[in-house]
Amino acid sequence: MEKFEHGGNIYREDVPAGDWLDFSANINPAGLAPSVRAALLAAVDDVINYPDPEARELKAALAERYNVPAEQLVLGNGAAELFYLFLQTVRPRRVLLPVPSFSEYERAALAARCKVSCFALSAENDFRIDWEEMLAALPVTDCIILGNPNNPTGTLVTRNELVRLLEAIKDGTQWLVVDESFLDFLLFDSRYTVRDLVAEYPRLFVVQSLTKFYALPGLRLGFGVAQEELAKRLNAGKDVWNVNLLAQKAGVAALADTEYQQQSRQQLIEEMQRLYKRIDGLRGIKAFQPSVNFMLLDVSGTGLSSSGFTARLRARGILVRDCANYTGIEDDCYVRIAIRRPEENDRLLAVLEEF
Amino acid sequence: MEKFEHGGNIYREDVPAGDWLDFSANINPAGLAPSVRAALLAAVDDVINYPDPEARELKAALAERYNVPAEQLVLGNGAAELFYLFLQTVRPRRVLLPVPSFSEYERAALAARCKVSCFALSAENDFRIDWEEMLAALPVTDCIILGNPNNPTGTLVTRNELVRLLEAIKDGTQWLVVDESFLDFLLFDSRYTVRDLVAEYPRLFVVQSLTKFYALPGLRLGFGVAQEELAKRLNAGKDVWNVNLLAQKAGVAALADTEYQQQSRQQLIEEMQRLYKRIDGLRGIKAFQPSVNFMLLDVSGTGLSSSGFTARLRARGILVRDCANYTGIEDDCYVRIAIRRPEENDRLLAVLEEF
Repeated sequence: MEKFEHGGNIYREDVPAGDWLDFSANINPAGLAPSVRAALLAAVDDVINYPDPEARELKAALAERYNVPAEQLVLGNGAAELFYLFLQTVRPRRVLLPVPSFSEYERAALAARCKVSCFALSAENDFRIDWEEMLAALPVTDCIILGNPNNPTGTLVTRNELVRLLEAIKDGTQWLVVDESFLDFLLFDSRYTVRDLVAEYPRLFVVQSLTKFYALPGLRLGFGVAQEELAKRLNAGKDVWNVNLLAQKAGVAALADTEYQQQSRQQLIEEMQRLYKRIDGLRGIKAFQPSVNFMLLDVSGTGLSSSGFTARLRARGILVRDCANYTGIEDDCYVRIAIRRPEENDRLLAVLEEF
Repeated sequence: MEKFEHGGNIYREDVPAGDWLDFSANINPAGLAPSVRAALLAAVDDVINYPDPEARELKAALAERYNVPAEQLVLGNGAAELFYLFLQTVRPRRVLLPVPSFSEYERAALAARCKVSCFALSAENDFRIDWEEMLAALPVTDCIILGNPNNPTGTLVTRNELVRLLEAIKDGTQWLVVDESFLDFLLFDSRYTVRDLVAEYPRLFVVQSLTKFYALPGLRLGFGVAQEELAKRLNAGKDVWNVNLLAQKAGVAALADTEYQQQSRQQLIEEMQRLYKRIDGLRGIKAFQPSVNFMLLDVSGTGLSSSGFTARLRARGILVRDCANYTGIEDDCYVRIAIRRPEENDRLLAVLEEF
């Protein structure tokens, strides 16, 4: 596996023949909402037009749904683009990354010629951030990027913890980027989100994806929330058509579909709890407490390495995310699985029980 | 009109009511190929998957069609993204722009914190580049970006002229970016393209759009050709999913549709010649010789400014591109029109004849 390879690459040559299930990509198992599908089909003939460069409809829908002023929004061709955009625009010299985390943070920081330092999260501490240690690292840091919940560990940090960090950098020159891309899967996010705080803390940038919760990774759609001046700088750093017309239409339809949102969220959380209990009861596998639609497993008790474990599941038509290529993962024993539909999770459980 | 506003913005509040025609965006009037439309419809349900991060199918199709090795390709979310990517990755200090030209060159250079110098093209010289003058500017330049054909002037530079420039910078530190986004509209491009020269001149970057010729501006699709080492750097400077799944599928279908390519190219060139003759015969309007699917007009003889002219056409349901906001356009008398289908061009002609 290459250093920056992700899950969800179903185009690899070693995808199993026949019927297979992809637990390697963290996408809402409810799939494409019928309302979104209809919006896409209705818009196919419009691709002969440029997207709205100001994305008025989509920005209005996002502003309403997330309760942020449209002037604070920066739209992304997926959330991933926004890390590159932020780092290339702001160019912090030294970036601190709690790891393991989404590898695009590091890749984007290297692309922007930042010096990357890692802040190791340890399994013994359930991959939780030691805040005293992080505050102590601030004097030698220009930017911190953290995922909330963090991928692949699933750990959440609270809004209060983030406010403490924001207060600590308030008079400094450091930036804080918080990736809330999976926060939509929570039943309630008010204890966690900081997207409403950018006016108060102008060195905060919050990133959110619509790709994962609305099952649109092929279309690419994300957004950032930034204090108005930073939002202007970021918007000037990319071309105005970066969110394609179909993604704009899909986003508007998705944000209007509260039934999809509520139902799929409820089902996912129930299924997450069920799968966690079942897997944690299996001999040889330790599951870390999940918070959203994925779960980190320590498979060392099976006697297999993560790559051996992944290969064995692959042979049974199940793709999972071998975490060996994550920066900050030293032991070759971690695998990430997505939470899928009950019957699909049962198929995974059946295979795991045989191990 | 804002400084960096483009044509093709049909979302503005002042779009005429009723039946209108957009001559402000330079899109192939043949529209979406039925083969591409079918490919899009067939792929809508696949948007629940990530795009192929290596875009194997699309790269193979591009490599074959444009006769370049796949390793030299950098895919763009539209051609526009590639200017930002190149400039943010390479970070030339001083960028020289022959102007007027596509305004994203300047906007991208400013985003990458380059110092922008303009190289004025004059109407008296039909907006042609004075090569002696350009060669003389090389010592104070780190990067030149030019469109071939240039937008909005329609001027072409020959491969021989570009080779002369490439030879002049061969042992220097300057970069040359050539935007060949409209070259697909030519019946034969071998006298003009330099996309096959990147191995020989590693400081050359060639950009091409599939948006315009295949009428896909809403989907976003472009590519760059660079010597392998530069291509690797550029590919590392963006996330791997920047070309969405539907754009990849559409691109593959479009590149396979040689009938669409040949027919629409032939029809466009014939219609371009007809429209040029008809408009150039009108009193008060001077048309500059077009080379592809758009034409620059000097409307000073009508007694109207370009904004007045644009407003009058708008009142008649016809959108054209007021060129007043182009850097390098000082006289308020230039308008750009797209070449559309014969019956649509006739409608434009009928309105112009009344003026």
